[in-house]
Amino acid sequence: MGVDLGNLLAKMDILSTSDHTSVVSINIFVALLCACIVIGHMLEENRWMNESITALIIGLCSGIVILLVTGGRSSHLLVFSEDLFFIYVLPPIIFNAGFQVKKKQFFRNFITIMLFGAIGTLVSFAIISFGAMKIFKNMNIGSLEIADYLAIGAIFSATDSVCTLQVLNQDETPLLYSLVFGEGVVNDATSVVLFNAIQNFDISHINSSIILQFVGSFLYLFFLSTVLGVVAGLLCAFIIKNLYFGRHSTDREVALMMLMAYLSYMLAELFYLSSILTVFFCGIVMSHYAWHNVTESSRITTKHAFATLSFICELFIFLYVGMDALDIEKWKFISNSPGTSVGVSSILIGLILVGRAAFVFPLSFLSNLTKKTPYEKIEIKQQVTIWWAGLMRGAVSMALAYNKFTSEGFTQFRANAIMITSTITVVLFSTVVFGLLTKPLVRLLLPSPKHLNRTLSSEPTTPKSFIVPLLDNGQNSEADLGSHIPRPTSLRMLLSTPAHTVHYYWRKFDNAFMRPVFGGRGFVPFVPGSPIEQSMHQTE
Amino acid sequence: MGVDLGNLLAKMDILSTSDHTSVVSINIFVALLCACIVIGHMLEENRWMNESITALIIGLCSGIVILLVTGGRSSHLLVFSEDLFFIYVLPPIIFNAGFQVKKKQFFRNFITIMLFGAIGTLVSFAIISFGAMKIFKNMNIGSLEIADYLAIGAIFSATDSVCTLQVLNQDETPLLYSLVFGEGVVNDATSVVLFNAIQNFDISHINSSIILQFVGSFLYLFFLSTVLGVVAGLLCAFIIKNLYFGRHSTDREVALMMLMAYLSYMLAELFYLSSILTVFFCGIVMSHYAWHNVTESSRITTKHAFATLSFICELFIFLYVGMDALDIEKWKFISNSPGTSVGVSSILIGLILVGRAAFVFPLSFLSNLTKKTPYEKIEIKQQVTIWWAGLMRGAVSMALAYNKFTSEGFTQFRANAIMITSTITVVLFSTVVFGLLTKPLVRLLLPSPKHLNRTLSSEPTTPKSFIVPLLDNGQNSEADLGSHIPRPTSLRMLLSTPAHTVHYYWRKFDNAFMRPVFGGRGFVPFVPGSPIEQSMHQTE
Repeated sequence: MGVDLGNLLAKMDILSTSDHTSVVSINIFVALLCACIVIGHMLEENRWMNESITALIIGLCSGIVILLVTGGRSSHLLVFSEDLFFIYVLPPIIFNAGFQVKKKQFFRNFITIMLFGAIGTLVSFAIISFGAMKIFKNMNIGSLEIADYLAIGAIFSATDSVCTLQVLNQDETPLLYSLVFGEGVVNDATSVVLFNAIQNFDISHINSSIILQFVGSFLYLFFLSTVLGVVAGLLCAFIIKNLYFGRHSTDREVALMMLMAYLSYMLAELFYLSSILTVFFCGIVMSHYAWHNVTESSRITTKHAFATLSFICELFIFLYVGMDALDIEKWKFISNSPGTSVGVSSILIGLILVGRAAFVFPLSFLSNLTKKTPYEKIEIKQQVTIWWAGLMRGAVSMALAYNKFTSEGFTQFRANAIMITSTITVVLFSTVVFGLLTKPLVRLLLPSPKHLNRTLSSEPTTPKSFIVPLLDNGQNSEADLGSHIPRPTSLRMLLSTPAHTVHYYWRKFDNAFMRPVFGGRGFVPFVPGSPIEQSMHQTE
Repeated sequence: MGVDLGNLLAKMDILSTSDHTSVVSINIFVALLCACIVIGHMLEENRWMNESITALIIGLCSGIVILLVTGGRSSHLLVFSEDLFFIYVLPPIIFNAGFQVKKKQFFRNFITIMLFGAIGTLVSFAIISFGAMKIFKNMNIGSLEIADYLAIGAIFSATDSVCTLQVLNQDETPLLYSLVFGEGVVNDATSVVLFNAIQNFDISHINSSIILQFVGSFLYLFFLSTVLGVVAGLLCAFIIKNLYFGRHSTDREVALMMLMAYLSYMLAELFYLSSILTVFFCGIVMSHYAWHNVTESSRITTKHAFATLSFICELFIFLYVGMDALDIEKWKFISNSPGTSVGVSSILIGLILVGRAAFVFPLSFLSNLTKKTPYEKIEIKQQVTIWWAGLMRGAVSMALAYNKFTSEGFTQFRANAIMITSTITVVLFSTVVFGLLTKPLVRLLLPSPKHLNRTLSSEPTTPKSFIVPLLDNGQNSEADLGSHIPRPTSLRMLLSTPAHTVHYYWRKFDNAFMRPVFGGRGFVPFVPGSPIEQSMHQTE
């Protein structure tokens, strides 16, 4: 009977035959994700490792195993697809970053962040493009045109904000975190805009008109993307406040927040805006308004559910990149000249190091000029950390490189094959080596994070864990604003603390006009029958 | 400048060109999902509507609009894919159902549920197949073989448990809910097994050996699927308990639970088991053990996040079915004989009504024979409700029909086209008409749900909303077990309450052996620094 049943069951695959291979792939992938979580958790105490690197290494090992099992035919389970990355995996990560970011720190350093993200990326792009053009011409790597060199500049200017988030800690080093992460978001947007511009502009005649057009289009994109994200976030807050969702269901509130955030991302894609910026600002606005309009359960659920989704997506990316790195197809074409590929990768890593140094230190100097108090300035040790934390290259670089160098069929051109394998090498090397060294470096350079921990010292420093106390509606990040902001008593003080003053007037505007319409902290949704809500009313 | 920028932006579509159509589709789809949530919320008070019907009607309307906009070329945005349905959309719904089900009710009625789900589905299958065979032969609908008729029986035996869940309420009618929903899960599994069996067995020689083989394979599938789900759930509980995840991060716990549940589903798919049963039992075990091992935040997050995912997936299915219904391709082939399609659909609906009546009333009678106390029996009014609530046909029927009647290219065979359109008609009609009438019917037949509300009378009867009080670890569903179960004082009492006795010994076994290993209620993870945990320790 056993054999009969086996036969029988083997025949019962009508519903699955068409995609049984993909079922196997999904199984292995999900099992590996589980393994990453468990192993990453066990290595938590280790001073070198973080979850990204664990996932990357597990991905590499699985790639080797698959390579051996399939007899060298294939090493990856899923085909790398930009769509998969840009449409499904990136949005939750960036949205969650906006949702959890400490808004006060972010907006206080807004100008510095924009300097680093936009100007810095352009500097880095120029240095990498120019360096590659000069050095690669003397190497035997096939024909590359000027547009290719510019694309290389854009590809390797895109830092990996995901990996950075895992290395720096928002509670321990809030200033650095907001600078590096904020830079990462603006950098992502800048690189993608740059890359698209290079593919479309007529590069052969660079003149001032084209540069003006380019700057104009960048500002246009930045402004419209931000507005779209803000509008989506406000709309969500307005709907939840005015339709009183909490009356019936937590699920509806959470579902609406998720779907509206995703809708903002996809709308930005639809209108060719920077969807990364849009969903980031949508997250900020939602956490400022919509999050306060929902029930207690929804607040806890959204905080953790969005973080969990983002966490899974991050692991997915690193696992995938690790697995994809060994794809035999790509390495076949450079197997007769491994030295060239190593050389190209080393040069690129060198250019990345130089390109980043070339803007971090000068721009930090500029930024420090505007700050009056010494503790607001970016110290030299912090500058080194910022420089170092942005060296990693990740999935955005991979996606751009695939877009550029496989579109014409990379099997035909030696140069394309070399650029793809070099990108993989740079991504792997920078993530693993630079990533491994970041934790020790941060501890070495910033041994006592207390002097940075001004506004957040009340928080327990549990790494990667934010415990949301139930009756504490985000006071950690906001409640102390009223008392901390120095009231401008004289013109001189107003001039000396421009950022604080802007913040103060924004606060007044927010309280007078925005909160009555869109809710926000202080709005208490009344849920009949909920003991939590009842106790909240009693304590008020 | 405005026009220039417009041009410029229009050219910047390198990253999106390849799939700009799909970006548009995703945008419309997500926007419609948001609309469904908001409109469904506003119609909550309406006595006829529920969210499924709202989504279905919005889908139909969008289908009409798209049909008009595209000039009659297409009405749907995404192509119906069984894979999409079975691999991505169904697992969250069934897992959440297992996770939220009231375990006590479910296991108390286990035998009745199995009777309804397995025997009932077979009866319904036989009647629909036989009826269709007799009636359709005299109609002009092209050539159908005996295997086709049997497939029709299996397709229309698959009830729509998703829609049922939205109509019945777990708190108001716990007995009915557990019966109808439990039946739905077993029914899904039975229909899919039946359908696969029909496609593989040599139908022309039905003899006792084949029937025995069939019964054997069904039991084998049922047993293995359940075991796989239970093992996955226990493994997850074990990992979380022993590695002490709460120490670091809520996100890891939630991510692990989600991924392990999905892994169990995909493993079942891999081994050709019934993945629906597997993930259902995985959900039950996780809510019994793993859920109690995690931090307070994780408990609230999982409860609501799983419900939210399930909610979105349900809306997705109904919106999709509504939109897909108008696909012009399918209707083209029967446009010259609309009467035949209406006739076939009416006959099928009639067969569904008869087929369901033919097992609900006899099996209820059988089930009542085993019950001693009158309040445990299924009254005639409840029988009518059970009969009615299982009449709806949904996405499983659609998926099976597509699998059967489009695999050979339905454009070539008139009979196939008629069966596809009839399936759509039956799904739409049963969901909208039967669905609309269910709420009023339940109120008419069961005007005062108090006599059913024995174990749950302490819960507020807020529809579709489960408020999880923070310090109340699921006592609603479990804490009263110890006191409510009558201790067997004599052999006669033991015989009169066999289900309770089984439950009593299971409780003893659970407390003595399972909970020390796998955690569960009473296991308090210690999280340093969490004020909630501290207060819990103090109150203990």
